[in-house]
Amino acid sequence: MGEFDLIRRFFTRPATRAVLGVGDDCALLQPAAGMQLAISTDMLVEGRHFLSTVDPFKLGHKALAVNLSDLAACGARPLAFTLALALPRADEAWLEPFSRGLLALADAHGCELVGGDTTQGPLNICITVFGEVPRGQALLRSGARAGDDLYVSGTLGDARLALEVFRGTLSAPAEVFEQARARMEQPTPRVALGQALRGVATAAVDISDGLLGDLGHILQASGVGARVDTSVAMNLIASNNRATWTSAAFSSEKWLELVLSGGDDYELAFTAPASARAAVQVASVQAQTRVTRIGCIEAETGLHLVDAQGQAMPHRYASFDHFA
Amino acid sequence: MGEFDLIRRFFTRPATRAVLGVGDDCALLQPAAGMQLAISTDMLVEGRHFLSTVDPFKLGHKALAVNLSDLAACGARPLAFTLALALPRADEAWLEPFSRGLLALADAHGCELVGGDTTQGPLNICITVFGEVPRGQALLRSGARAGDDLYVSGTLGDARLALEVFRGTLSAPAEVFEQARARMEQPTPRVALGQALRGVATAAVDISDGLLGDLGHILQASGVGARVDTSVAMNLIASNNRATWTSAAFSSEKWLELVLSGGDDYELAFTAPASARAAVQVASVQAQTRVTRIGCIEAETGLHLVDAQGQAMPHRYASFDHFA
Repeated sequence: MGEFDLIRRFFTRPATRAVLGVGDDCALLQPAAGMQLAISTDMLVEGRHFLSTVDPFKLGHKALAVNLSDLAACGARPLAFTLALALPRADEAWLEPFSRGLLALADAHGCELVGGDTTQGPLNICITVFGEVPRGQALLRSGARAGDDLYVSGTLGDARLALEVFRGTLSAPAEVFEQARARMEQPTPRVALGQALRGVATAAVDISDGLLGDLGHILQASGVGARVDTSVAMNLIASNNRATWTSAAFSSEKWLELVLSGGDDYELAFTAPASARAAVQVASVQAQTRVTRIGCIEAETGLHLVDAQGQAMPHRYASFDHFA
Repeated sequence: MGEFDLIRRFFTRPATRAVLGVGDDCALLQPAAGMQLAISTDMLVEGRHFLSTVDPFKLGHKALAVNLSDLAACGARPLAFTLALALPRADEAWLEPFSRGLLALADAHGCELVGGDTTQGPLNICITVFGEVPRGQALLRSGARAGDDLYVSGTLGDARLALEVFRGTLSAPAEVFEQARARMEQPTPRVALGQALRGVATAAVDISDGLLGDLGHILQASGVGARVDTSVAMNLIASNNRATWTSAAFSSEKWLELVLSGGDDYELAFTAPASARAAVQVASVQAQTRVTRIGCIEAETGLHLVDAQGQAMPHRYASFDHFA
């Protein structure tokens, strides 16, 4: 199977939303009047972002999911994406399920594959995604204001829990592990929630490197600080897991670390004025996505962790850094 | 140096054309009214697309040049690009010249770096580029018609000549090698020519995998054939090189192979009606880019090579295929 056969067999489908899709030097998009184009790119490398043993179907899902998560954080509606793929060899047994997983998630979000590139090389998946957002309505990192509430969508920490089990540093009952593994291998981008939060949230970011690290981007861009209630945050790890786990020799500090700096969550952290609490709940219901208020934004810069009694706690959680 | 320092130091500059540049979950572009967005992505892998010994400044240039070449083939004006980069380590001595070479070419074309991703991994450079083209005016591969002239811009084969010298299968006098090496390491995307050919050319493609292979894309998409005059094509290799080289034990068939299937040229192959010959010359002068008429489009499908006497020649030139 040559390069062009490979593209034809696994990655070419008729364009319905794009003016021109796969098969020319460029794809052509025609954004609707009044819309801005939101663009994000993510590169996934074997051994860094996924294990070599991962099911290719799930990897196809994840490769697009992490990009859709960036669109979600901007409140953009997915339109299209490009796929650049370096492969050690043209292996149909890998390409077929990979493309199925990729395109299944793409279809679920009406996000069209419009172009790409394939080459021989160490496995590397680079997707660039395009969404549209009404002019001036994108959710940015820079809009948080002192007094805003701080929220997180879904659950946090489960992906990291699974990774630690893979690494052998933790063990877990099979059903707990499988649930956490699904979070790691097939994250759910919060695309509907991001769009529902337009005009409601003041700032948003997607959580890929851990809550505290990514929240730090909002604080830095907005020139503010935040207080996070750890007694609430701690329950963000899928709670039925946690109940199962109380028998394990697992300190609450370890739980908190999974939640606060676990990474690979692809949830949204966002801020909204206290006056918008009802609107946030409406967005949550509309998007069928749980949101939890975990703290607030403060004028004083810095990130402050407090316990159930409001007492300051030490903060020694690192964010993921590819070169640290 | 951590991931975010690296981005800040080498890849962050204020956005002037984009609504929002590097530093949020997404970049935001606002295409002008009536414009379509042309999008292309190319992934460069060490050992496949460049040698590990290449000067990082030149590699930065080439990584963007091969993408701008795709915009050129569509007649699009460059606007912006994203850069995803996998690096074995955060090496300033590499990053500094790489980013300089990349951004120098970007500045020369008014093409703004609006976002990206960095990760640890085997060296891999994935750029996605965005251009604009008036609605309906993009040059496509599918517009060639029987009777059209067939043209090529610039020179062909020199990049492959340099590669063969690197591989030790050919040798060359130093000044010839350096000239060919510059073509291999710092190709010139024909951006001005592509735009000047809007409304003149009927089809275009950029030549990355060799003239015959990429011309094949036009023929397939347009449902036509072509005749190529090899006595003209043969002179497309930088002619002063060729004069120097007549002393080398180099068959004319070898020269022809470099020209017809060398690859890595990043010139444009395009078609235009015979009635547009003057307009093609005007475009060539406007863009200060030489164009050569090398044959014509025929209704009968297939690619036919002819010699100076118009006699059919055997065609046994392969196109580059990453998985063949």
